[in-house]
Amino acid sequence: MKEFLHTLPIEQVQDGHSTITNDCVIVEQKIAFFLNRSLLLSVMSLPQHQDAHLLGFLVSEGVVTSPKEVHNLCVSADGLQVFADAHIDQDALQRLFADKTLTSGCCVGVSGNMDNNAAVLKRFLDTPLIVPLDFLAQQLALFESPTPLFEKTGCVHKAMLVCNQGTLLCEDIGRHNAIDKVMGRAYLLGYNTTDSVLFVSGRLSLEMVTKALMHRICVVVSKAAATFQAIRAAQEVGITLIGFARGKKFNIYTHSGRIAGLYAQQAIVE
Amino acid sequence: MKEFLHTLPIEQVQDGHSTITNDCVIVEQKIAFFLNRSLLLSVMSLPQHQDAHLLGFLVSEGVVTSPKEVHNLCVSADGLQVFADAHIDQDALQRLFADKTLTSGCCVGVSGNMDNNAAVLKRFLDTPLIVPLDFLAQQLALFESPTPLFEKTGCVHKAMLVCNQGTLLCEDIGRHNAIDKVMGRAYLLGYNTTDSVLFVSGRLSLEMVTKALMHRICVVVSKAAATFQAIRAAQEVGITLIGFARGKKFNIYTHSGRIAGLYAQQAIVE
Repeated sequence: MKEFLHTLPIEQVQDGHSTITNDCVIVEQKIAFFLNRSLLLSVMSLPQHQDAHLLGFLVSEGVVTSPKEVHNLCVSADGLQVFADAHIDQDALQRLFADKTLTSGCCVGVSGNMDNNAAVLKRFLDTPLIVPLDFLAQQLALFESPTPLFEKTGCVHKAMLVCNQGTLLCEDIGRHNAIDKVMGRAYLLGYNTTDSVLFVSGRLSLEMVTKALMHRICVVVSKAAATFQAIRAAQEVGITLIGFARGKKFNIYTHSGRIAGLYAQQAIVE
Repeated sequence: MKEFLHTLPIEQVQDGHSTITNDCVIVEQKIAFFLNRSLLLSVMSLPQHQDAHLLGFLVSEGVVTSPKEVHNLCVSADGLQVFADAHIDQDALQRLFADKTLTSGCCVGVSGNMDNNAAVLKRFLDTPLIVPLDFLAQQLALFESPTPLFEKTGCVHKAMLVCNQGTLLCEDIGRHNAIDKVMGRAYLLGYNTTDSVLFVSGRLSLEMVTKALMHRICVVVSKAAATFQAIRAAQEVGITLIGFARGKKFNIYTHSGRIAGLYAQQAIVE
């Protein structure tokens, strides 16, 4: 983990008193993604799970329709270049940069394909998955437990994927990177991601729901808020969207039928 | 403000009890930026201060070297299209999408020009500005005071620019949008932004320092953490970078000489 952290002297001020102290900060790097031997794009990220990152990204963007289509994943010795070969969906690759949209906190790529993914694929995640409430609360407690990078820097997002074969957690400076990495790791480990649950620390904007859709994740839980476009898209594609998940308290925005063990009080509180 | 907010029924869960209640969420829109009658890009944002957003963005990206170069700013009736004419720096426009880099939470654009701006411009902000500590704390208190959008949705970032002529505050779903908007508003109002102080709610990653540099803002204060690349860049270009600013407590990462009234305790705390 050391390579992501740098200790430097800062002036810590409290009530007008300045103290020079050593502080630990996160070190992001510019990492280049190469696809079929040509530069696809670069990403500001942490040099960790770079191969998983590229794999997850290619699926998130719909550049490949399955992680199985990606071959020869490798990372350069300095960790700053990632290479992959793939049978590319040329249309998707074109779309990746065709519609230049800056999202609430993400890349042109995701949103370049965002509309298309939602509109063209017309997916609806009609998995019979049922998630017991106590299981959800138990996994949320695990997700909320302190992680070294965040404890030291307070400067990373995290994503956790709960699969039948196991639970994976990734931290990155970008909330989108964290999701791509955790999905990529699951694919590299050969996990069956069907009926897995995704926990994220960041806000649920439209592109997060698109990512979940592309990876066929039907339950997404965030510690933060959800936007209207995210809620609308989740409703349309059959994703159970849960926000402000903290302890035993959370908001279910869509498809609450997947959550079992709820004692319903059907009162409308205005 | 109503057009950014939507009220919808959600299931609020606490200790296993589910209650259907009305929740207020933020509504982001896809807004198209047109430059010299051709589509530049689209941005997921709130339909507010759209003209200021485009103006601030063009300066942030170095597409124009001064806001004075931008003419005929106008917004379509539905608020989803923004138009501007400008004497464009063709190289900057090319760079805007040449180097496709996904930043920690921003767009290809910013970082497409990021390296170039830092490297080519070789600016150093050597303004004689001195900011008294009590003034900083006073403005921070103002910045920390509740805002309607955040109170209702918990889903927006904010940026506040403190100029001699006045103080401006913008909220948006994107931390980068908020900065572009507040800078654009200052330009539209004819404010002299030299020696102004920028407060932001989001993390200070490299592209935030680049934005400040492009707008010649020499003091940037955030409630959140700063990354190593942001600190390194701020040190190089002469920006006073302050993070974790909460109440009377904050961390000064670079160029603390601009902050007056500090009682220094020069002890190194390991």
